Amino acid sequence: MSAGEQILALAGGVGGAKLAHGLAMTMEAEKLVVAVNTGDDFEHLDFYISPDLDTVMYNLAEINNTETGWGVTGESWNFMDALARFGGETWFRLGDRDLATHVERTRRLRAGEALSDITENLCSRLGIACAVIPMSDGPVRTIVETSTGETLPFQDYFVRLACAPQVTGFRFDGADQAEPAPALARMMEGDSIGAVIICPSNPYVSIAPMLAIPAFGAFIKSRKIPVAAVSPIVGGQAIKGPAAKMMAELGVDISALGIARHYEGLIDGLVIDEADRDLLRPIEELGIKVLVTNTIMRDVAEKSRLAEQTVEFARRLKVTA
Amino acid sequence: MSAGEQILALAGGVGGAKLAHGLAMTMEAEKLVVAVNTGDDFEHLDFYISPDLDTVMYNLAEINNTETGWGVTGESWNFMDALARFGGETWFRLGDRDLATHVERTRRLRAGEALSDITENLCSRLGIACAVIPMSDGPVRTIVETSTGETLPFQDYFVRLACAPQVTGFRFDGADQAEPAPALARMMEGDSIGAVIICPSNPYVSIAPMLAIPAFGAFIKSRKIPVAAVSPIVGGQAIKGPAAKMMAELGVDISALGIARHYEGLIDGLVIDEADRDLLRPIEELGIKVLVTNTIMRDVAEKSRLAEQTVEFARRLKVTA
Repeated sequence: MSAGEQILALAGGVGGAKLAHGLAMTMEAEKLVVAVNTGDDFEHLDFYISPDLDTVMYNLAEINNTETGWGVTGESWNFMDALARFGGETWFRLGDRDLATHVERTRRLRAGEALSDITENLCSRLGIACAVIPMSDGPVRTIVETSTGETLPFQDYFVRLACAPQVTGFRFDGADQAEPAPALARMMEGDSIGAVIICPSNPYVSIAPMLAIPAFGAFIKSRKIPVAAVSPIVGGQAIKGPAAKMMAELGVDISALGIARHYEGLIDGLVIDEADRDLLRPIEELGIKVLVTNTIMRDVAEKSRLAEQTVEFARRLKVTA
Repeated sequence: MSAGEQILALAGGVGGAKLAHGLAMTMEAEKLVVAVNTGDDFEHLDFYISPDLDTVMYNLAEINNTETGWGVTGESWNFMDALARFGGETWFRLGDRDLATHVERTRRLRAGEALSDITENLCSRLGIACAVIPMSDGPVRTIVETSTGETLPFQDYFVRLACAPQVTGFRFDGADQAEPAPALARMMEGDSIGAVIICPSNPYVSIAPMLAIPAFGAFIKSRKIPVAAVSPIVGGQAIKGPAAKMMAELGVDISALGIARHYEGLIDGLVIDEADRDLLRPIEELGIKVLVTNTIMRDVAEKSRLAEQTVEFARRLKVTA
């Protein structure tokens, strides 16, 4: 791989997975590396579940469930129904097809394989050609701090309590001990990465856990490689998920400008939606280049177009620090 | 429970489960205790799987799959299909509904619950009123000895190799260290059991593992309580499963008389099919009482009738030793 040829995309859940899919459809496979948040990972029913890895994997394999936004297309729920009859926990919905991912991943983790090696193999089995790498093989657990003082493991907050608690902050247990996954570490040591794209994922619970890994955060913040982000906030709303609710509870301006301020000093460019064109000037005043385009990805064409524009934008960026 | 009021039924797979269902339909629930073989149990895909317990449980709950003879009715196979795509092991078919049993049982075993406690709870959840008790909470593993000298864990022989190898004998690893499950042990100490019924299960791999548990074998062989068996061989053939093939390979007469000789000294009575009426005399000559009736259980009526006749026959038996 020649110097600067690769794009490193940072992705969390649905929005990140959509842009990653766009990138995969429009780039040569060997030039795309998708690093994925594992702060949402948890153990449930004795399975090791990695929701963001699964969402990215299912989107890239084009077997994602577009109705739910998570899980596998053509899913059935007979396992869950039978488990309910036994009084088992059903708040985290595990579809019959999806379950194979958890069974296989968990079995192999117990057998001593690394999460990144398992991920590579599962992705390969699903015909995914680009690199999909969990941010770390070590455990990092996102903990949501709430206004009642209670702290919640992420999936309890996100799924069981449907994001109802008011957040006051986040903690990434284990992050300071975590190392980037070996394949990521090798790339970071080389010169193949020409630009970083922060996908339109939740900045607090999808992107922040990755940056909380010291060596990975230091690499992104080293300012040697241009970094472009795609705003997950459009017209004052999150396309999906609790990002806007979190911003409100944290007292942050719910806008692409709020996103720009959040990423200030980290990114060189921000992709915002046409709906937010009036924020171009204030964002540029932060020293961040802006690309205004349609950032809502409703179909394959929109994903591809946004991916191409973002890559072109990111490659043209100069490190501003 | 007054003295002698309970029936203890020994059951393995399909034939045993059918008669157990007949017994459950025709007896007061508190008078029926079904002890189930766990020599077939094994670990697969990191699940603890207990095929005979499941077959008995599904039959008693009337959710058994009558087409396959194992598993749950209305089953789907999406988990298995998805696992195949990952290159996972699919020789042991795990349906989506059935999987809930394995997930829940395995999770609770890992959490330290006893197999017999878990079984009681799962059965209760499925509305089963009589006692279903695994023969032991300790591990007993049936190993098939074959003509090539190779020894095979039971499910490898039974499912993976479809009973193709020629058997020369059986071993029940762990049996000599195993204790009967606590609920069985309590019954054995009391005087509530009036008769034992050995269901038409495979004598070598369903019933023998139970008798190989020293305290349980000694109880059955103590000759204090009459024991009746129902022949799994009808007209020189096994209704289901490899019993007849095993008898042939072991050089045993494939007939109800062969079964009588196998159980000689252990049983006081044998229920044989009308098709085998000509064997009545030679079996009686072994000192075993005989009931000739229709032993093929094609429907609920046939199961109930055989169950009622067998209970009546067993209760009338005198210990002959």
